[in-house]
Amino acid sequence: MDIITVFDYVGTLAFAISGIRLAAAKQFDLFGAYVVGLVTAVGGGSIRDLLLDVTPFWMTNPSYVLITAEALLFVVVFKKYVVYLNNTFFIFDAIGIGLFTVVGLERSMAAGFPWWVNVAMGGITGAAGGVLRDIFINEVPLIFRKDIYAMACLGGGLIYYMCHAFGLPSNITQVSAAVSVFTIRILAVHFKVSLPALSSLEELNTEDNG
Amino acid sequence: MDIITVFDYVGTLAFAISGIRLAAAKQFDLFGAYVVGLVTAVGGGSIRDLLLDVTPFWMTNPSYVLITAEALLFVVVFKKYVVYLNNTFFIFDAIGIGLFTVVGLERSMAAGFPWWVNVAMGGITGAAGGVLRDIFINEVPLIFRKDIYAMACLGGGLIYYMCHAFGLPSNITQVSAAVSVFTIRILAVHFKVSLPALSSLEELNTEDNG
Amino acid sequence: MDIITVFDYVGTLAFAISGIRLAAAKQFDLFGAYVVGLVTAVGGGSIRDLLLDVTPFWMTNPSYVLITAEALLFVVVFKKYVVYLNNTFFIFDAIGIGLFTVVGLERSMAAGFPWWVNVAMGGITGAAGGVLRDIFINEVPLIFRKDIYAMACLGGGLIYYMCHAFGLPSNITQVSAAVSVFTIRILAVHFKVSLPALSSLEELNTEDNG
Repeated sequence: MDIITVFDYVGTLAFAISGIRLAAAKQFDLFGAYVVGLVTAVGGGSIRDLLLDVTPFWMTNPSYVLITAEALLFVVVFKKYVVYLNNTFFIFDAIGIGLFTVVGLERSMAAGFPWWVNVAMGGITGAAGGVLRDIFINEVPLIFRKDIYAMACLGGGLIYYMCHAFGLPSNITQVSAAVSVFTIRILAVHFKVSLPALSSLEELNTEDNG
Repeated sequence: MDIITVFDYVGTLAFAISGIRLAAAKQFDLFGAYVVGLVTAVGGGSIRDLLLDVTPFWMTNPSYVLITAEALLFVVVFKKYVVYLNNTFFIFDAIGIGLFTVVGLERSMAAGFPWWVNVAMGGITGAAGGVLRDIFINEVPLIFRKDIYAMACLGGGLIYYMCHAFGLPSNITQVSAAVSVFTIRILAVHFKVSLPALSSLEELNTEDNG
Repeated sequence: MDIITVFDYVGTLAFAISGIRLAAAKQFDLFGAYVVGLVTAVGGGSIRDLLLDVTPFWMTNPSYVLITAEALLFVVVFKKYVVYLNNTFFIFDAIGIGLFTVVGLERSMAAGFPWWVNVAMGGITGAAGGVLRDIFINEVPLIFRKDIYAMACLGGGLIYYMCHAFGLPSNITQVSAAVSVFTIRILAVHFKVSLPALSSLEELNTEDNG
C-alpha cells in the first residue's frame, strides 16, 4: 500500500466520521448514519465520475464502503472520546481534501478535459461530499457560509498548473498541490480567515455611498 | 403482461402516491405533486442507472410517467378516501420495494459489477426514491430515522446471493429475495422493530461507564 | 455570435443572478453565492446531459462559468440597484427558460429519444436548475408551489411538436416553441395564473360532498 493510498483511506475515514457525527446529532439511526458517512466520503468523487462519464471509483474497490463501516464502528464504540479527537479529525480531513483534490484533478485530466474543468473537478472531489452530507441532514451547506474550504481545493488546483507550467516532475507537482490545499485549509482555520458574505458587502457599499 | 410487470407497476403506483400525498401536505401545486410523485417512483432506479452508466429505465418505457399521472388523478379524485387506504398502500409499497430490489440487483449484475455493488444497487433502487422525495419536500429523509426499510432491501440482496450460492434456479432466487424484502419490511413495521439511533447508543455508553 | 448564443448567455446570466441573490439573502459567502449561481444556471442542463449520457454542456465551453463570475461581480458592484432591476431580470429569465427548453428538447432529440422524453428534457433544462438552487439554499423548491414555470416549458415542448407535425421548417419551430414558453410564463405571472394546490382540492372535495 503506497503513501497515496494511505492518505486516500485516511481522508475517507475522516470524511465518513464527519458525516456520521452530524447524522448522530440529528438522531439518525445506525443505517442512516452509515449512509450519510458514505455519501460524505464518496459523494464528491461520485459526482465527479458521473460528470466525467467514468465508473464511480467506489464501485470498483470495496475499500471505501468498508472504511465507512469501520468509521461507524469507531464512532459507536468510542462515542464518548470522539469529541476529544476534534483536532485529529480536522488534520485528517485536511489531508483528505488535499489528496482528493489532486486525485480528482488528475482523473479529469486523464479523461481529456481542459485545465479549468480539471481544477473544478478537483474542487468537486474535495468539497461536494460535504455539500451532499448537509443536504441529506437538511442543513444549509456549511462550506457556503464558513471558512475557506472549496477555495483551498481550487487554490491547490491552480498551484498544480503552475508547477506544470514550470515543467516540474509530476510527483513534485502532486505533492505541491496537495500540500497547498492542506496548508491553505489549516492556515485559514487557524487565523479564522473567511470570505466575506455578499450581504455584508451590501452594508459596506451602503456605508461607502452614504 | 407478466407477473413481474404487474408488481413493478403496482410498486410504481404506490411509490408515486406516497410522494404525491407528502407533496400535498406541503401545499405543493398539481405540477409539484406530480414531480415529487415521479421522483419518488423513478428516482431510485434513475440514480442506479446513472451509476451503472445505462439509460435510465423510465426513458425507454412511458409506463412510469403515465402511472404517476394516474396516481395523481387517483389522489385528486379520491382524496377523502386515500387516508382510509393506508394499509393497502403500505402493502403495495412493500411489494414495490421487494420487486425494485431484485430488479435493481439484476440490472447491476447484468452490467458486470461485483456482488456487493449489486446488493447496494438493489438497496438504492428500493430506497433512494424516498430519500429524493424527502429532499424535494425539504424534510430529513424518513428512512434514516425510522423503521427498517433500506435494511430490508439489503437483507433481500443477501438472500439473493445465498440462493445463488446454493445453486437455486434464477426464478426461485428472485422470488425468495423479493419475498424476503417484503416480509422483513412487513414484520419490522408490525413489531415496531427499528435500528437504534447513534445518539441513544451514546447514552447507553455513558450509563455503562458511569 | 448568433442570436441563439446571445439568448443562451442572457438566460445564463439571469439564472445565475437569481441564484446569487437568493444565496446572498441566506448569508452565503462569495464562494457559496458563486456555486449557487452556477448550479442555478447550469444545473438543469447538467441533469439533462447526465440522463442523456452526453458530456455536460458547460464542461466543453468555459462561457458559462465565466458568465456566472460576471453575474457575481455585477451583484457585488451594483448590489444596491439590483432590486430595481427585478422586472429586467424577470424578462431575461423568461427569455432564458424559452431558449433552454428548445435547446434541451433538441439535445434529447439528437440523442435519439422519443418525443415525450424530449419534452421532459426541455422541461428539466428550463426548470431543474431552480429546483437544485432551492435545495442548496435549503428551501422548498419554489416552482412546486407558485406560478406557472415548468408548465410553460412543457407547453413550449408540445408547441414544438405541433409545429413539427404541421411540417414547419425547423427555425420557425424553434422560435415558436421558445416564444410560447416566454409568453406563457409572462402571461401567467402578469395575470397571476397558478395551478391549484392539491390540498385546496381536498377542501373543494369536502365542500362538494358536505
